[in-house]
Amino acid sequence: MKAFYGDLKLGILGGGQLGRMLIQQAINYNVTVKVLDPDREAPCRKLCDEFTVGSLGDYETVYKFGKKVDLLTIEIEKVNVDALEQLEKEGVLVYPQPRVIRLIQDKGLQKHFFKENDIPTADFKLISNLKDLKQNGFEYPYMQKLRRDGYDGRGVYKVVDETYLPSAFTEPSLIERLVDFEKEISVIVARNENGEVSTFPLVEMEFNPQVNLVEFLISPSTLSFEIQQEAERLAKKIADDLKIVGLLAVEMFLTKDGEILVNELAPRPHNSGHQSIEGNVVSQFEQHLRAIFNQPLGDTTCLSNAVMINVLGEEGYEGPAVYQGIEKILKCPGIYVHLYGKALTKPFRKMGHVTIVDNDREKAIEKARFVQNTLKVIS
Amino acid sequence: MKAFYGDLKLGILGGGQLGRMLIQQAINYNVTVKVLDPDREAPCRKLCDEFTVGSLGDYETVYKFGKKVDLLTIEIEKVNVDALEQLEKEGVLVYPQPRVIRLIQDKGLQKHFFKENDIPTADFKLISNLKDLKQNGFEYPYMQKLRRDGYDGRGVYKVVDETYLPSAFTEPSLIERLVDFEKEISVIVARNENGEVSTFPLVEMEFNPQVNLVEFLISPSTLSFEIQQEAERLAKKIADDLKIVGLLAVEMFLTKDGEILVNELAPRPHNSGHQSIEGNVVSQFEQHLRAIFNQPLGDTTCLSNAVMINVLGEEGYEGPAVYQGIEKILKCPGIYVHLYGKALTKPFRKMGHVTIVDNDREKAIEKARFVQNTLKVIS
Repeated sequence: MKAFYGDLKLGILGGGQLGRMLIQQAINYNVTVKVLDPDREAPCRKLCDEFTVGSLGDYETVYKFGKKVDLLTIEIEKVNVDALEQLEKEGVLVYPQPRVIRLIQDKGLQKHFFKENDIPTADFKLISNLKDLKQNGFEYPYMQKLRRDGYDGRGVYKVVDETYLPSAFTEPSLIERLVDFEKEISVIVARNENGEVSTFPLVEMEFNPQVNLVEFLISPSTLSFEIQQEAERLAKKIADDLKIVGLLAVEMFLTKDGEILVNELAPRPHNSGHQSIEGNVVSQFEQHLRAIFNQPLGDTTCLSNAVMINVLGEEGYEGPAVYQGIEKILKCPGIYVHLYGKALTKPFRKMGHVTIVDNDREKAIEKARFVQNTLKVIS
Repeated sequence: MKAFYGDLKLGILGGGQLGRMLIQQAINYNVTVKVLDPDREAPCRKLCDEFTVGSLGDYETVYKFGKKVDLLTIEIEKVNVDALEQLEKEGVLVYPQPRVIRLIQDKGLQKHFFKENDIPTADFKLISNLKDLKQNGFEYPYMQKLRRDGYDGRGVYKVVDETYLPSAFTEPSLIERLVDFEKEISVIVARNENGEVSTFPLVEMEFNPQVNLVEFLISPSTLSFEIQQEAERLAKKIADDLKIVGLLAVEMFLTKDGEILVNELAPRPHNSGHQSIEGNVVSQFEQHLRAIFNQPLGDTTCLSNAVMINVLGEEGYEGPAVYQGIEKILKCPGIYVHLYGKALTKPFRKMGHVTIVDNDREKAIEKARFVQNTLKVIS
């Protein structure tokens, strides 16, 4: 590999907030970064050496972009994998590997992978159409998830009883037994080409059920040592089984019986790792760079309690974003604001996040509530 | 003032590493940044919304650049102040204020300011030419410093005895009694438009006498509480006396008698504050942004012991930079690499810095020595 701090050209597929925070970190290593995104106003547009506007799903566009770089990574998994496989054949490094992206793009294949590798996950069935759905034999209520292209809460549907069937998805999807869970938890794991594997400490999440988005994330978890150990073991096992190079977010359910079920994977920096920028010795973004550059992985130890909240566009507002209450929250110590450079807000759009760091966990949570009630994205 | 996170356009005079790290922080607030620098390969060139190549000393260039922004700041004080004063008259916010930059550009005026405001500083005389120098009446050895344009160790000359006179500067300069100092120390202070003033904890520096550059910086200082308090009091007093808006680095000598003498001011982020990125709750860059945007100043508390070393170009090498030993230092936990995006190295050029964070001060220093011996910038 070329020296990552100089000659090497890194391409990122996707120019959203994850790419933006990755670039903020990559600046420290002099990395030359090129970005491809369909939106000419994408958050990365002004922060990279070259910004290309184009479709991430189009073979030719991705292939042509990939030919200009030495190493290609992603910040979104909805990309043209055929192009990535061709690029890989032609000697471009692609991390995470195309085969991993292909697997994870399809929630059905993901579920099969879990099954084949003894990774605990909720019971499921794959269905192709409405007829399959009606005959699935699962008790109500159950979840229906599109196999492909679900993102940020889209593509998930709760089938409460048969009156919900007419609105169900008719595309290939999986149905999943509803998990009676206590908590949603996540472990981010990294693996480099040398096979070194390292996990971040377990974090706990609170979702906003209305929009199915993480609203509140607490790091580190105060769940029992056994649960933490088991969650980290599963994340490491998955990284090893996949032989992924790069970062992998492993979202899990902790059931009321104390069982851990793996829900979903994301082969990239993830919303459940944003608090690591200030809360851990290395951030998930630094760790992803270290992994794909095949450098020694960093120390993931928590520096403090950290709570992360997503800053979502307020309901009822659409247009140029105005951030109400920033001055108030900046008065409060240990609060870190990250805005994503999106000019336009709309209801529940992820406009930024705020991390609150405090040695006292309860105080951190209290401050996070204050931020949540104070910072509003309106128009 | 326009909302700093959106409509406001921030101009930075100078596109070097200080501007680069300021931009890394400004990204978190969606700030639109324009940069002016004479070097088309300057470290900021790819990280801002608009990069203009032009002379910082030229009236027309600075004026034209300033007319494109709402708020102008500096990362180097060698700029055309006449243009800044005109821009200020025409309603552009200029922080730090042009009058402060004008004062600090001239070490002679700085010294007079210290004298008039009861700020302890080494005895000095201003001289205009060689004749003045020969008749100054100071005992050998003494220091000669150019009044203007000294930077990074240039413009300072030690007159050991009369045989040194032929090589002395003939331009307007100040001569200064040699201070028998124990330590060089620094306090960074910030002041916003509301008059809020906040200091970072005192740091200690070790210089490389060969090139007169900070080589090693330790935060926080372990000097006595009284000394820390006095240094912080002086820094606050200077910020108040100047009524500066923005960051001010106050470099001081601690004499062998325990007296503090103020050496020099820098009205901007400063090399003696780089460790704050990882070592303090807010970094000097975040604090500068808060100050010039008239936001509440942040909490400057140290999170841990932090040691910063400058990564200088190795003697004997000139050309495209190669960073030897990065992989080795990345194996060591708590080490943060910051490269400045300079393509070419030359002896003693500041190519980057590394901050080492460790709860154990001695361990942090030990790791810093390891980094210093391991990371080499060659060509």
